[in-house]
Amino acid sequence: MIIDPSTISPLSCYRLLAGTVVPRPIAFVSTVSTGGVYNLAPFSFFNVVCAEPPVVAFSPTFRNPPKDTLANVLATGEFVVNIVSEEIAAQMNVCSGEYAPDVDEFQVSRLTPVASDLVRAPRVGESPVSMECRLVRIVEVSTRPLGASLVLGEVVRFHLKDGLFDGKAVDPGRLAAVGRMSGNTYAYTRDRFELVRPR
Amino acid sequence: MIIDPSTISPLSCYRLLAGTVVPRPIAFVSTVSTGGVYNLAPFSFFNVVCAEPPVVAFSPTFRNPPKDTLANVLATGEFVVNIVSEEIAAQMNVCSGEYAPDVDEFQVSRLTPVASDLVRAPRVGESPVSMECRLVRIVEVSTRPLGASLVLGEVVRFHLKDGLFDGKAVDPGRLAAVGRMSGNTYAYTRDRFELVRPR
Repeated sequence: MIIDPSTISPLSCYRLLAGTVVPRPIAFVSTVSTGGVYNLAPFSFFNVVCAEPPVVAFSPTFRNPPKDTLANVLATGEFVVNIVSEEIAAQMNVCSGEYAPDVDEFQVSRLTPVASDLVRAPRVGESPVSMECRLVRIVEVSTRPLGASLVLGEVVRFHLKDGLFDGKAVDPGRLAAVGRMSGNTYAYTRDRFELVRPR
Repeated sequence: MIIDPSTISPLSCYRLLAGTVVPRPIAFVSTVSTGGVYNLAPFSFFNVVCAEPPVVAFSPTFRNPPKDTLANVLATGEFVVNIVSEEIAAQMNVCSGEYAPDVDEFQVSRLTPVASDLVRAPRVGESPVSMECRLVRIVEVSTRPLGASLVLGEVVRFHLKDGLFDGKAVDPGRLAAVGRMSGNTYAYTRDRFELVRPR
């Protein structure tokens, strides 16, 4: 089956990309507005960019005016990426709804905002891992309806649940991260296998 | 546990990011050099950026001279992202080794290069999904040893195994994609769950 993307709708194209580029890690991004309202929303067009310095990137879909997360990042230059474990997956999903800018998704989802060390945005107390980030750059990729910007942030502080990282490796069983598939579907990371990298 | 990334080694930082930003989708990227040598290598710092136009991005770690994939993308402006199913996971792993620029990883892994429609880079015949891409932009993020560039490409053609996409949704069971965890660990996408998005 061969598909020329210019012959299908942008929504079909979205479904094709979201259905095949899987499983995706989830950035559960917390921010604060200049007026002090907390915001919390999940993004699965997200990944690490590099480790030196530690940079992560996520892509909020284009909106005019921008989605609350992007508006807050633009206004404050700061955000926190929280990792989603099985334990908080349902609460993350609650935050994937569309809420007005004055709604605090911490309250809607009953997750706990905990003060960060270096940025004004709070972190999610229940997350196994939180990364305090400072905005590095926004790459505007497309301002069409299903276009997006790429938000790059440098991790300036990590918070980890005790026993998760021994200085060399993260314990994937204790982390119990969930991945994003498409539609309403998510994937566990319980079922793993090993492949020894060739020298 | 609180970690200030400036107090740990870049390698520890890499392990922390690669161990917590999971599960990651894998871009199995095929390219061709100006001299006609095929190259094939996996990258898990990879994701969708947006759907309109369809743009994907991956981050090859900085090297001087650049890794073969990046060198070929720079020289030709083209690449193919192939999705990794369970069936070809072991062969993808073979391609994750370090090989000289004149080595064709299709031969090493015994995967089949199939001519693309619109780009010179071949696609992987055994992949359930291949995306022919034209380079949009390279964002240089860091030229330190564990730094990276972000390579953005527009998908100009999709190839899909029959029965995978009905025009609305991709069948995750038939796709059987594998995700990257850290170290030698990968995750299956067999164990899934549903969360209905709030309105």
